[in-house]
Order: sequence, then structure tokens, then C-alpha cells
Amino acid sequence: MLFLARMDVQFPAHLSAEDVTRMQGLEKEYSQALQQDGRLASIWRVVGEYANYSVFDVESNDELHQILSSFPMYPFMKIKVTPLAKHPNSIR
Amino acid sequence: MLFLARMDVQFPAHLSAEDVTRMQGLEKEYSQALQQDGRLASIWRVVGEYANYSVFDVESNDELHQILSSFPMYPFMKIKVTPLAKHPNSIR
Amino acid sequence: MLFLARMDVQFPAHLSAEDVTRMQGLEKEYSQALQQDGRLASIWRVVGEYANYSVFDVESNDELHQILSSFPMYPFMKIKVTPLAKHPNSIR
Amino acid sequence: MLFLARMDVQFPAHLSAEDVTRMQGLEKEYSQALQQDGRLASIWRVVGEYANYSVFDVESNDELHQILSSFPMYPFMKIKVTPLAKHPNSIR
Amino acid sequence: MLFLARMDVQFPAHLSAEDVTRMQGLEKEYSQALQQDGRLASIWRVVGEYANYSVFDVESNDELHQILSSFPMYPFMKIKVTPLAKHPNSIR
Amino acid sequence: MLFLARMDVQFPAHLSAEDVTRMQGLEKEYSQALQQDGRLASIWRVVGEYANYSVFDVESNDELHQILSSFPMYPFMKIKVTPLAKHPNSIR
Amino acid sequence: MLFLARMDVQFPAHLSAEDVTRMQGLEKEYSQALQQDGRLASIWRVVGEYANYSVFDVESNDELHQILSSFPMYPFMKIKVTPLAKHPNSIR
Amino acid sequence: MLFLARMDVQFPAHLSAEDVTRMQGLEKEYSQALQQDGRLASIWRVVGEYANYSVFDVESNDELHQILSSFPMYPFMKIKVTPLAKHPNSIR
Amino acid sequence: MLFLARMDVQFPAHLSAEDVTRMQGLEKEYSQALQQDGRLASIWRVVGEYANYSVFDVESNDELHQILSSFPMYPFMKIKVTPLAKHPNSIR
Amino acid sequence: MLFLARMDVQFPAHLSAEDVTRMQGLEKEYSQALQQDGRLASIWRVVGEYANYSVFDVESNDELHQILSSFPMYPFMKIKVTPLAKHPNSIR
Repeated sequence: MLFLARMDVQFPAHLSAEDVTRMQGLEKEYSQALQQDGRLASIWRVVGEYANYSVFDVESNDELHQILSSFPMYPFMKIKVTPLAKHPNSIR
Repeated sequence: MLFLARMDVQFPAHLSAEDVTRMQGLEKEYSQALQQDGRLASIWRVVGEYANYSVFDVESNDELHQILSSFPMYPFMKIKVTPLAKHPNSIR
Repeated sequence: MLFLARMDVQFPAHLSAEDVTRMQGLEKEYSQALQQDGRLASIWRVVGEYANYSVFDVESNDELHQILSSFPMYPFMKIKVTPLAKHPNSIR
Repeated sequence: MLFLARMDVQFPAHLSAEDVTRMQGLEKEYSQALQQDGRLASIWRVVGEYANYSVFDVESNDELHQILSSFPMYPFMKIKVTPLAKHPNSIR
Repeated sequence: MLFLARMDVQFPAHLSAEDVTRMQGLEKEYSQALQQDGRLASIWRVVGEYANYSVFDVESNDELHQILSSFPMYPFMKIKVTPLAKHPNSIR
Repeated sequence: MLFLARMDVQFPAHLSAEDVTRMQGLEKEYSQALQQDGRLASIWRVVGEYANYSVFDVESNDELHQILSSFPMYPFMKIKVTPLAKHPNSIR
Repeated sequence: MLFLARMDVQFPAHLSAEDVTRMQGLEKEYSQALQQDGRLASIWRVVGEYANYSVFDVESNDELHQILSSFPMYPFMKIKVTPLAKHPNSIR
Repeated sequence: MLFLARMDVQFPAHLSAEDVTRMQGLEKEYSQALQQDGRLASIWRVVGEYANYSVFDVESNDELHQILSSFPMYPFMKIKVTPLAKHPNSIR
Repeated sequence: MLFLARMDVQFPAHLSAEDVTRMQGLEKEYSQALQQDGRLASIWRVVGEYANYSVFDVESNDELHQILSSFPMYPFMKIKVTPLAKHPNSIR
Repeated sequence: MLFLARMDVQFPAHLSAEDVTRMQGLEKEYSQALQQDGRLASIWRVVGEYANYSVFDVESNDELHQILSSFPMYPFMKIKVTPLAKHPNSIR
């Protein structure tokens, strides 16, 4: 079951450069694990913005929320989720 | 080069049911041809809306506009295009 | 799996009063069948608006889109869907 | 009498992790007491957001404001309230 | 129990001047009856707009929706309702 | 001459609880004086929000701005003013 | 007492060119009379739009609504009014 | 003196295909004359939309409005104008 | 050549009362000099807001940006500029 | 391949005047290098705002994101990118 998520990152001003770098490292690890096991089907950078569009493939809303709220940078992200269905013209 | 497009369809009130059905047929044909040749990489229905999110894989902005404006239902669609870049955490 | 949907109805000007009444009858029938089988868990009128908030309990995004797009008044409704997860403070 | 409330939480940057945890504990207690006595009929997490949709069952606007403004995290929440009426198609 | 409603009127283009005048007459009658019995506590014109702000004094959400949806011009009005509570600084 | 004002309060994070309480006391005093002399005709709390809708009865725009900008909490309020006129259906 | 009004004109599709021209003639006459007697202090075209910003100098909100709602093209205009006060830095 | 304009075209439903084609022909002629004499410095299609961004080089606001309101398709365009100044980092 | 500007002031929380007062003094001086030489044709306070609408009379966009960006409080203002043209109904 | 970008700068309150000046120097250098090599085709100041509209001429979305995210002031800019295509009326 697919969902499109737009995730916008905004770090608070008081965060040190070290904290940011450390969190970005954890984020990468977490993100790549999700891609390896197939639950994060795609992730793209929005050109010119500290934001991404991601496609998640999960079993339920609860699983999706569990995944999203476990992102290391979750407290600093604004996320909007759109549920997707099969399109009648899709050949997949 | 990838682009995300959200496409919302709104038919004018005066269109006959036949015209709508005919256009939807042409649309399917056109959409599937684009998927066959790889330029329309993905297309999903937005749940509850006469709208889709689509991922296009093209060589240039001009090619993308050419593709979009040739959709049979183009005059009845509101399209918003977001250019995508490779995400640093992507494993693809 | 729960989803909240806000559904706003807007009939086109050219629709006859008879067509509206007939569609409202079909709508009631369809809506009540969905409530009987548990897939439409709740439906409330938004005070002062031709709109409702509804809670759907379904197995998948595809099932939800199938349900929504089969509403007799679907062509005249603007629907926004919000996926819901279990709240940590909920006692249910 | 039912009301739908969307509640978005945003903690100010200076709040310590301990303060947040303590407030979340108080919040849970308060929320569950409201559910026990029936005034908070439902509460759901919005997937991907630090937000909830809640349905309140109260006697009056004053009672609802009293309930909402007594949430321990009230100073850090943005709340939008929608009054609900019985829907003509509802079987309840 | 008080509610503030903003009501914006928009007649469809095809309505004849006679229909508009007739509906405005019915509207006045209905509005004044509501004022006489106290359920419509105040009604003001928004300067420069075909719109009003009104204060309703009712027993319940259901009663308010019943009142609003019975306005003769209801099909041509966009209404937004805000529930009001006693203000701690009010001397009334 | 009547005006509707919506006033939203937002205190900056650095304000001490004492300062807030003190200002709320001054605010109450000021607000009630305005009600006593009739220039603040009504004030209601917006349910669930640190906001109010108020009706002012003044001689001029300058007088209204003088009144509003003298609220003790003015620096922390976002105010939107709507000029009101007599409604043709009003019985007052 | 001054008010700024932004007025956007939108004619319905069914209006004939003759009707438009006739109304524009009446509008000019009415507008210029208001300018002659000083109640319409200034009127400017918004570059690139069928819209204007106008400054009105009137005794009351009721007078302003009376003036605005008597514009021949009033039914086809969307008007937003902003009450103005003397600015402390103004030398007038 | 430079201005950026975004121009969105929307034809009313009743316009015949012939009228549209004829207007597009006149539009091209007019647009190209403006480009020849340098007043329309650049014009680009917004990808996926019946819209353009254009840069105008004119002597005054009045000249710009004169140019814009003379576009053959002006009645069917929504135009937003942004005045531009020399950027301190520009090497031109 | 006329431009309408809406200027909203928002001081950051950390600014001392003395800095604010000092800047307001400089602002008044600067504003009145602009009025004396005719480039700031009018300035009005928006009722209830720390904001103004101003009409500027300048030779070019560059001159206008030079004027605006030299306001002592420029770093704390959000400014929106609308280019104005002569209105066909204006008698001036 | 052309893209229009609107870039709004907002420095956090804690940044020292020296840091701002230093960053503006780096920004100028970087911006002018991009103009020299032709990838930044145009850059204009938005009148009255700390913002610019820029036209980029690049080979791909990835190149554009690389360029934008390397601006020295990138962490303090909100950027919106619009892909541009050749306009059928353009003579270039």
C-alpha cells in the first residue's frame, strides 16, 4: 500500500553544526535501512529546498506513522502524507 | 531527469458523458504509451480525488511540456510540476 | 485502518431539482449500506455547510478509493482524505 | 453535542526533554480521564504529524473551551474546532 | 450558546432578477422571525461585500444547522461557523 | 459605528509567567473599562483558541486604532478589523 | 475618515459586449461624481489587472457601504475594505 | 525598467475552437511585435501550465498597463506583476 | 509614477525598548523627509495593526527599492509593492 | 534548459552583523562566478523585499540543485523553482 510523503526539514537556530551533522548521519542510516527492506520505495530531493518527496510501501497507517515518527530528524520535519491508490491507466 | 507532477482533472459541466468516456479512452492509450517507453515512470491515483501524482523521466523541460500538453485531457487538467534531484540518502 | 474524509458537495447550476433529489436518495442508500457493513464508521454534518466529516474503516487505500469513487454524488464532491493512526493516549 | 477538533502540537525550542516528557505524562492522564467519562469520544493520531483529530461530546461551547484550555499542553497547541450535527444519512 | 457565522452570498448567473428579489423577500421574513424569537441575536452587513456576520443563540449544534440550512438563500451561501465561549474579561 | 475585530494572542517564549499574569490583569481592567463606557460592545472567546471576537462601537477609525493600540497586550496580538454596516434585514 | 478599498471586476461570461460597455459608462459617471464631491479621494488601476485601489473619505461605515453597493458594476465586483487611521509619521 | 509578469490563461467554456485559434494567432502577432521593439524582453512557458512568465522593459507603470491590457487574450488572462530592480550582485 | 506599498513591522523579541524607540525616531525623520520632497505621497496606519499603506511617487523601480531599503526599520518590515497606473475614470 | 527561481533571504536573529556582511561578500563572489560562466543567466531584486528572481541555464535538475545548495546563504534562503519551456510566441 503506497503513500506519498513530502518532508520539509527545518532545524532550530540553536542546533550546533555537530548536532546537525550527527543527525544527518543517523538519518542516512535509517533511511537506507528502510530502502533496503523495501518500505521506502523511493526518495527524491526537491530541487532548491531542504525537502524530499518519498514513496512508502507499508501494510497499514500505523506502520507508516511508526516509520515516520522514528526518523532521527522527525522533530525537525514537517510531513504531509497523501494516500495513493492504483491508477486505472497504470500498466504496473 | 525526474519530475513529479500532480494533475487534477475538472471537466466543464457542458461536456457530454460520451465525450468524457471517449477522452478517457484516448487518455489511457496515451498514458500507457508513455509508460511503455519509460517517460512516465509511475502514475498513482490520489485517494478520493480525480487527480494523480506522476513521475516523469525526460531529457529536458521542453520535452516534459511537450508530453504534458499532449495529454488528451490537458485542457481540463490543472498541473503542478516539481523538479526532483537525486537524494543524498537514496541507494539507487 | 481508519481514515478521516472531509467531503464537500457542490452541484452544478444546470442540475434539475429532480436529479438532485434522486441522487440524494441513492447517496443515502449507499451511505447506509456502508455503515451497516462497518466500513463507514461515522458520518457527521459540518454545521452550516453542505459537507460532512466521515471516518472510514478499510483494509487498504485501494479499497478506500473504490468506496469513495462509487458514491453516487462523487462527481460533485471535493474530498480530502487524512490517514489516521492509533493515538498513544487512546484507551480504545 | 459533538465537535471535531484538530490539535497541532509545537513545543518551543527552549523546552527541556524532561519538561516535554513530564507534560506528555500529564497530557495522557488528562486525556484518558476525558475518555473514561465520555467527553472525549475519540482521539486519533494524524499519520506523520505531531497532531491529532479528536471528537468531543459536550453540553456546551463553554464546557468545550473549559476542557480544551485545561489540556496540560494547551499553551503549545494550535486547535481548530468544527461543530458537528447529525447527518441525515447516519444510521446512529 | 453563541456562534458567530460569516455568510457570503453568491447567486448563480442564470438566476432571474425576479427570483433574486423573491428570495431576498423570503430571506428578510425568515431572518426577522429568527431575530424576534432571539435565536438570531445580531446580524451585520460586511462593508462592501454581499456578506454578513451573524451571532446565533441556540441550544445545540443540531438546532443551529437546522436554522442555517432553512435560510431561503442557503443553497447560494457559503457559511463558516465559529463556536464562541464566555470571555473571562466579559462583564456580561 | 460598529467594527468586528478578531484578536489572536501569542506571547513570545521568553516572557515570564509573572509578566503574563500581570499583563492579563491589566488587560482585564482595560477591557472592562471599555465595556463599561460602551465602546467595547461585546467580547467572546473563540472556543479552543487564545483569541477573541470583539465588537467595537466607536466614532471613527482613529478612535478605534487608539483603543486597540492601547490594549496592554497589543504588542502580542494579531488583530484583523472588519467594518460593519447596518444589515437591511436587521430589526434593531 | 479614510478607507482603502481593493475592487476586482469579473463579468460573467454571458454578458454581452454592449451591456459591458453600457455599465462601464454608468460606472465612469458614478465614479466621477464621487470624486467631484470628495468622497472618492483617489482611484488607481492595478497594473495588469481589471482591478483598482481606491481611497474613500466618508462619515461612517454605513455611508461607505451605501456608496460601494451603489456602483453600477457592484454585482460583478469583489471588494475588500481596509479601515485607515492617521499615521504618527504623517505630516498631513 | 523591468517587470516580471506571470500570466495565466483561462478560456471560458463557451468559446469556440475557432475563436480560440484566431485569438492565439492575434496574440502571437502582438507578442512578437513587442519582442521586436524590445518591450517584451523575454517570454517563457511554465512547464505543464497554460501560463507564462514574461519580462517587460518599459518606461512607466502606465506604459506597462497599456501593453498588458492590449493583449488580445487579456480578458481571459489573470496577470500578476512584480516590479524588479537591479540586483547588487548582477554583473550586467 | 505611483506605487502602493503595504509595510508590516515585526520587531524580533530580543530588541530592547530603547532600540525600538530610537529606531522609531529615525524612521519618523526619514519618513517625513520623504514626504517633504514628495516621494512619499501618502502614509496611513492600518487600523489595529503595526502596519501601513503608503503611496510612493518615484521615477523608477530602482529609485523605489533604494527608498524602501533605506528605511531605518527595513530589516524588520515585510513589504509588498503594487504598481499603480492611471485609472480611466480618474478625474485627476 | 531554463528555470526561474524566487529566492527569499531571512537571517536568524542571532547572526552578527559581521557574519551577515561576510556571507554577503561570499554570496556576491559565488553569484558573479555563476553569471560569468552563464549558468545564472539573470538576477533581479524584487522591489521592497530581501528577495530575488533568478533565471538559471543548466543541463539537469541535479546540476541546478547542486548550484542552489552551494549558495553561501542557502541555509537562510527559501527557494521556489519553476521549470520553464520555450514559449511558442518567443522569437528567440
